[in-house]
Amino acid sequence: MSSFINFENANNLLNAEIDFSNKVSGLKPSAIREIFKSLSDPEMISFAAGNPSPLSFPTEQIKEIAGDIFTNRPVEALQYSITEGYPKLRTQVEDRLKSKFGINMDGMTTIITTGGQQGIDLTAKALCNEGDIIITENPSFIGALNAFRAYNVDIRGVDLEDDGMNLCQLEKILSENKNVKMIYTIPTFHNPGGITASVEKRKAVIALAEKYGVIILEDNPYGELRFSGEDVPTMKSLDKNGVVVYCSSFSKILSAGMRVGFLCGRSDIIQKVVVAKQVNDVHTNIFFQLLASDFISKYSLDDHIKGIRKLYFDKCSLMLSEMDKHFPKHIKYTRPEGGLFIWVTMPEKYDADLFAKEGVASKVAVVSGTAFTPKQGDKSSSFRMNYSTPSDEQIILGVERLGKLLERYE
Amino acid sequence: MSSFINFENANNLLNAEIDFSNKVSGLKPSAIREIFKSLSDPEMISFAAGNPSPLSFPTEQIKEIAGDIFTNRPVEALQYSITEGYPKLRTQVEDRLKSKFGINMDGMTTIITTGGQQGIDLTAKALCNEGDIIITENPSFIGALNAFRAYNVDIRGVDLEDDGMNLCQLEKILSENKNVKMIYTIPTFHNPGGITASVEKRKAVIALAEKYGVIILEDNPYGELRFSGEDVPTMKSLDKNGVVVYCSSFSKILSAGMRVGFLCGRSDIIQKVVVAKQVNDVHTNIFFQLLASDFISKYSLDDHIKGIRKLYFDKCSLMLSEMDKHFPKHIKYTRPEGGLFIWVTMPEKYDADLFAKEGVASKVAVVSGTAFTPKQGDKSSSFRMNYSTPSDEQIILGVERLGKLLERYE
Repeated sequence: MSSFINFENANNLLNAEIDFSNKVSGLKPSAIREIFKSLSDPEMISFAAGNPSPLSFPTEQIKEIAGDIFTNRPVEALQYSITEGYPKLRTQVEDRLKSKFGINMDGMTTIITTGGQQGIDLTAKALCNEGDIIITENPSFIGALNAFRAYNVDIRGVDLEDDGMNLCQLEKILSENKNVKMIYTIPTFHNPGGITASVEKRKAVIALAEKYGVIILEDNPYGELRFSGEDVPTMKSLDKNGVVVYCSSFSKILSAGMRVGFLCGRSDIIQKVVVAKQVNDVHTNIFFQLLASDFISKYSLDDHIKGIRKLYFDKCSLMLSEMDKHFPKHIKYTRPEGGLFIWVTMPEKYDADLFAKEGVASKVAVVSGTAFTPKQGDKSSSFRMNYSTPSDEQIILGVERLGKLLERYE
Repeated sequence: MSSFINFENANNLLNAEIDFSNKVSGLKPSAIREIFKSLSDPEMISFAAGNPSPLSFPTEQIKEIAGDIFTNRPVEALQYSITEGYPKLRTQVEDRLKSKFGINMDGMTTIITTGGQQGIDLTAKALCNEGDIIITENPSFIGALNAFRAYNVDIRGVDLEDDGMNLCQLEKILSENKNVKMIYTIPTFHNPGGITASVEKRKAVIALAEKYGVIILEDNPYGELRFSGEDVPTMKSLDKNGVVVYCSSFSKILSAGMRVGFLCGRSDIIQKVVVAKQVNDVHTNIFFQLLASDFISKYSLDDHIKGIRKLYFDKCSLMLSEMDKHFPKHIKYTRPEGGLFIWVTMPEKYDADLFAKEGVASKVAVVSGTAFTPKQGDKSSSFRMNYSTPSDEQIILGVERLGKLLERYE
């Protein structure tokens, strides 16, 4: 007899405890979500978000395209559609991957996903059994870490250095374990680490993936957001043998709320992601797929992105110059050439959880590095600051507040 | 050393075989998808779809609301949003669940999902470990069956009778197995079975779920589409002890392409679904959540649904009267009081796969019952016909073609 809901020990059935699946029982609402609760305080300055600037949305053009779609092809925008995604948008994405990101599409195909997050989630679902190993950078993107945790995968962190993954640690894990399925990496404008991996490191990671027969999931949501320095080739463009699956989205260049992303990889992998997506949400909302496609056809996506880059260059420069002014000299931080984040590291003896709490008490929110550790419970002396969302005034005031706090963290 | 990608046996790395996860390796593109490929033939009449009629979309109102949203609150519609869903829409959904579906919300809460499909998928993810048992009707909805298969759950089918599940079979499975976690049921206008479960059967299934401590997932996407007969209370409205999780969507009453659904259940269950959704797609596209909310505020959803009911009553009546005219007397079929489907049963000795193939050769597509068997590979002598999508002319011509074919199935 089943005892899934423990009715027997409960005063009444509504209070009976449920044994949730081992997939979700360990998952807690993320630390970032908890921080967001404190943001309802109107005096709080938040450097905690990962949101694009509202100024990055081309609202006038979107309004115009929406009016056109609902006037001229409403049924197409409102009816069920195919799981793979709107064919024209897939072609446009593939063209852009070729021309802007140097990706050779031979033997490769794409699927439109419900944001980049779904691409990460379903790639793990298609490739990994429970107990398999996924290697990630340490630190890594919390949304990916939690997606992997929900498949009961064994996540192994590899230290993130200034030019990418620590290769010795990476090869040690690969050589000592039979069941590594995937290396998850954010080589460009790392979240939260702020760094961009060198082309040498990228090639070395690909060589290791080939040697040990594992897939690389290259997550590149910020790749279009370079505002200084020189482009580094995507890992997918360096991938001659199809070991790299490439994931990105329109969230940071058109709209995050519309939930349109894409995945590019070997056709057999993408086909498995298609069947996984079919049982997950059938297809990504088709209206915004049409809208993204029309935007690309009718306007210059490049010109629009140029504006976002300028905006983020200005915001990042302001935040860095204020940090240079107010942060004590022993506090280290990245100087990003793109993306949304600065990664700040205090002396090792300090606990970033404690610092983040003190920040909230001083009305400025950052995200403690412990949110990004592959191994839950690991300590961190680093924290993440976002510059895309706060106003210039908030950047100036918030950095000053943090600087005062940091004086005690010497 | 890992051998996930079998490079060694391949001529080149791109041809190397990948061992996909046991979650997706057995999943094939659904039979329905395969049928859709044949639909590119312009002469093909399709009774195979599960799509709502394009006439059911309130396109004028949607266009107006979209213009208003992109004019007056574009940033809200385009920025990241919260995983639980737009609070006002959740309240509106809860109000409707109370007023129209008799659901008591005490101790219950809701989450907005990316279509009803995601609600089914994530409920299974939150509740079931690999190897656990989910009980479904036989036949059942293919999207749910495949979602469960992708979690390596053991699916056990219970025969669907004219008034609902076979209770003896249901209790036998519950009493003989420790690890039944969930009973998945579509009690109203069953897909594909066409029937509506009696209130007695609903109560009996709830009593068994309470006795054996398992959750019921009540899937009710067609509940608003009654066009004749008397309403039967939802199982959730009969649920005094929180064993029922209720799943539905706006797909059949506003738009399927917008991918907005909802789930209602015990707060602890919904909280686990929230963390599962957060790592799946972060949140459902917020623009269409705002749009659904505004539609409910500004227009009468009930009046709109009244129009859909009239449309489907007419289409279903036409299909049934043509079937009465052309189908041989020994062919049995349901006479639905709502929903989208008629379920046709030939004498047991016949193979519906073969019949469906002959249908396609005669330029009329139906879905063989084998697509809906909980146990993959089981035979079926039944098939599903949809009346919401074809035109009146197509219904008349297609039923005549099927009638001719069926004369040989005596």
